[in-house]
Amino acid sequence: MNIRDMKITPIAVADPPVRNSSGVHEPYALRTIVELVGEDGLSGWGEITCVTDTVAELERVRDLVIGREALDLNRLRRDVTARLGNDPRAGARIFSALEVAAFDLAGQALGVPVCELLGGRARDRVPFSAYLFYKYAGGGGEHGDERADRWGEALTPRQLVAQAKDFVATHGFTSIKLKAGVFEPAIEIETMRQLRDAFGPAMPLRIDPNCAWTVATSIEIGTALAGTLEYFEDPTGGIDGMAAVQRGLLAAGVELPLATNMCVVRFEQIPPAVREDAVQVILGDHHFWGGLRAVVELGRICETFGIGMSMHSNSHLGVSLMAMVHLAAATPWLTYDCDTHYPWQDEADELLVGGKVPIVDGAIAVPDRPGLGIEVDRDALARGHERYLRVPYRDRRDDHEMRRKYDPAWVTRLPRW
Amino acid sequence: MNIRDMKITPIAVADPPVRNSSGVHEPYALRTIVELVGEDGLSGWGEITCVTDTVAELERVRDLVIGREALDLNRLRRDVTARLGNDPRAGARIFSALEVAAFDLAGQALGVPVCELLGGRARDRVPFSAYLFYKYAGGGGEHGDERADRWGEALTPRQLVAQAKDFVATHGFTSIKLKAGVFEPAIEIETMRQLRDAFGPAMPLRIDPNCAWTVATSIEIGTALAGTLEYFEDPTGGIDGMAAVQRGLLAAGVELPLATNMCVVRFEQIPPAVREDAVQVILGDHHFWGGLRAVVELGRICETFGIGMSMHSNSHLGVSLMAMVHLAAATPWLTYDCDTHYPWQDEADELLVGGKVPIVDGAIAVPDRPGLGIEVDRDALARGHERYLRVPYRDRRDDHEMRRKYDPAWVTRLPRW
Repeated sequence: MNIRDMKITPIAVADPPVRNSSGVHEPYALRTIVELVGEDGLSGWGEITCVTDTVAELERVRDLVIGREALDLNRLRRDVTARLGNDPRAGARIFSALEVAAFDLAGQALGVPVCELLGGRARDRVPFSAYLFYKYAGGGGEHGDERADRWGEALTPRQLVAQAKDFVATHGFTSIKLKAGVFEPAIEIETMRQLRDAFGPAMPLRIDPNCAWTVATSIEIGTALAGTLEYFEDPTGGIDGMAAVQRGLLAAGVELPLATNMCVVRFEQIPPAVREDAVQVILGDHHFWGGLRAVVELGRICETFGIGMSMHSNSHLGVSLMAMVHLAAATPWLTYDCDTHYPWQDEADELLVGGKVPIVDGAIAVPDRPGLGIEVDRDALARGHERYLRVPYRDRRDDHEMRRKYDPAWVTRLPRW
Repeated sequence: MNIRDMKITPIAVADPPVRNSSGVHEPYALRTIVELVGEDGLSGWGEITCVTDTVAELERVRDLVIGREALDLNRLRRDVTARLGNDPRAGARIFSALEVAAFDLAGQALGVPVCELLGGRARDRVPFSAYLFYKYAGGGGEHGDERADRWGEALTPRQLVAQAKDFVATHGFTSIKLKAGVFEPAIEIETMRQLRDAFGPAMPLRIDPNCAWTVATSIEIGTALAGTLEYFEDPTGGIDGMAAVQRGLLAAGVELPLATNMCVVRFEQIPPAVREDAVQVILGDHHFWGGLRAVVELGRICETFGIGMSMHSNSHLGVSLMAMVHLAAATPWLTYDCDTHYPWQDEADELLVGGKVPIVDGAIAVPDRPGLGIEVDRDALARGHERYLRVPYRDRRDDHEMRRKYDPAWVTRLPRW
C-alpha cells in the first residue's frame, strides 16, 4: 500500500475550563489531523497535538512520507527523526501521527485491525479511568460558540464528588483519577477522602498534582493518603525528586507506587529511573514515545523491570482515542486502567462518523473492523479547521489563560507547596 | 487467516564433528518443522530444535492453535505459555515455532513480507559472521549417509586459519567468530593471533568458549586478546561470573565488551545483568526468547540500556535462517553481524525449494516475497523425517559423542581452565 498524499488539518476543539498546576485550560484545545491517502484512495488517519510548529514539522517530512509503503515504518521513523533531529520530542511526536495513520491505512488495505498488526489483541475491552478536574463553570468555547456545561463548577471536595458520581454514572468507570496540584494540599487530601467515602474501599483512586509539591510535601501527602491511593502520580518533578519521595515513603513504612508521565517520557530516561527506583508505574503515550509500536516495546521494558503500566492522555478526539484502544489491546503488560480526557470533549467536535465512541462499563470495546475501525466525517473535520482559523489560541498556555480570566497575579510555580 | 491444521515433522540433518566445550556434535542435528495450514490451503512454516519432548509439547498445545487467527499472537503466547507453564523455556521455544509459522502464513495471505509485519525493514541485507569450529575430519552423517567433508580436520591454529579462509572466500564474510573452550587457552589465543595476522586489523574477530574458563582465566585471556577482539562471548558462566570478568578487565585497563547467549537468555535475566553491568552485548535468538516479536522488543531494551546486540544460532536449516533474516531486518538496533551455523549444513538436507540460501558478501538479502519468502520441498521434508526415524540420536549429547568416538575418559567440566 503506497502512500500517495498527506493532508494536514489543524483543528480546534472546545475545552472546558479545567484546572491544573499550571493554570487552566483555554476555551479550545488544538489538534492536528493527519490523513495519509493510499494508492487505491483509502485514507488512514492520525491525530496529535497542535502547537505552532506542528504543521511545519509535518511539511518538513512530507517528501519522506509520499511514495513510501505504509508498513515501511522502521525506515520512516529513522528518516523522520533524522530530519527533525534538532528536537527528539518533535521527531517522536511527528512520527507518531504518521505511524498511526500508516497503520490505519495498511490495516484497511489488508483487512486487518491495527491491534493485530501490533501483535494481536491481549484484551477485548480497554478500561479507562474517570479523569476528574477541579473546574470553573463553563463548557468550553466562546464568542457564540459556548458549549453546554453539564458538570458545572467543581472547586470544592463536595463538588468533585458530584463530578465523580456523574462520570461513573454516565460511563461506568471503575477507577478514578483526580488532577490535583490546584488547591492547598489539605483541600486535595480532603477531596480524596470524600471520594473514598463516596465510592467505598474497592474503587481505585489516583491523584496527579503535576509536580506541584516539594519532596517533603509529597512524602507527607503520600503518607496521609497511603491507604487511599492506587498510585501516586508525579507528586514532584524529576527522576531524582521522585526517587527521594519513594525513599521517604519507604522510610515512613509506606508502600505506594509512584507513577509518571513527566519524568520518564523517553526511552533514555528509563535507565536512570530504574537505577534509582524512581517510578513504579509509567504512563505510556504513543504521541510522546514515538508511536504505537514504541509503546508496545515500552510495555515489554516495564514487564521486564517489574514496572507497572498505564496510559497518559491529553485532550483528544476519537482518532487518538481509537489509536489508544488498539495500542492498549495489543499491550499485554498494561496493568492499570488508561487515562483519557475524552469525556470532557463535546459531541459537536467529534470527527468520527457516528459521533463520540461510547465508554460502557468504564471501557471501550476493541473494534474488529480493519485499521483503526473509524470513519472520519469530512464536514466535521472542515468545521474543526474553520474553528481553528477563527480562534486566537495557538500554543497551549494554561498560565496565560489563568491570568486573563481568573487571577491576574497568577504565576505558575512548581513546586508550589 | 484462520489456522486449520498443524503438521509437526521431526527431521535429522547431517552435522560435521565440530567441537565445543561440552564435546563434539553428533553426526546428525535434529530439528522440528512446524507447518500451519490456513483456511485457503496456504502453509506457513516454523523450525525449532528437536529434543525428546518437542513433538509432545507441540501436540499439547494443538487445540490452542487450530481455529485461531494467524495474527492472534498475544493470546496464543499467553495460552501456550500457560499450558506449558511448568517450563518457561519450553513455552518460549514452542511459541517461537508457532509464531514464525503464523507470521509466514499471515504474510502470505496478506501479500506482505514477515519483516513488514514486524515493523518494517531497517536494512536490505543481513550480515552474518563466519562461525569457525575446531573439528575432526568428517562431513557428518554415518552408515552410508556420510557427507563430503569440504573443510577437513581443523585442530591447530594453522588449520583454523585455512578454515576461515575457506569461509571468507566462499561466503564473503566480513567478521569471524571462533567457537573455543576446546584446547588449552594458549592454543586458542594463538589461533586468534594467527587469524588476526591472516586477515589484518580491519576484520572483526570474536571468541566464544561457552563458559570453559574461570573468572581469572577469562580476565587473563581477555587481557591477552584485548586489541584483537570485537567482543568476548561467554568466557565464564553466570551473570555474577561475567560481571566479575568485566570488573577484572576494567581494573586491568582493558575495554572489551562481554557478550552472552548463555547467562541472559530470558527477559527476567536482564535486570540483574543491567544492575551488575555483566554483559555489554546480548545475542538474541527467537527460538529462546519466545519469538520474533520478543526479539524485536529485546532490541528496544538493548538500545535503551546501551547494550549491543547480535544474534545467536544453533544448527539450523533455511526456515530458521529466513526467520532470522526477517527478524534482523526488522530490528534497527542490531549492532553486530549475526551468528549462523548454516554453512556447516549439507545442501542435501535443505528443505527449501531452490536449495541453500546463498550468503553473498557475508550477507543474505531480505526477500520482498510475502511471508518468509520461502517454499518448502515436501520431498526433502519427507527425506529429513525418514532420516530422523533411522538415526538413534534424540537429545543432543555432545559429551556422549565425545566419549563414544574420541575420548572415552571425556567429562564435560565448566569451567575447565
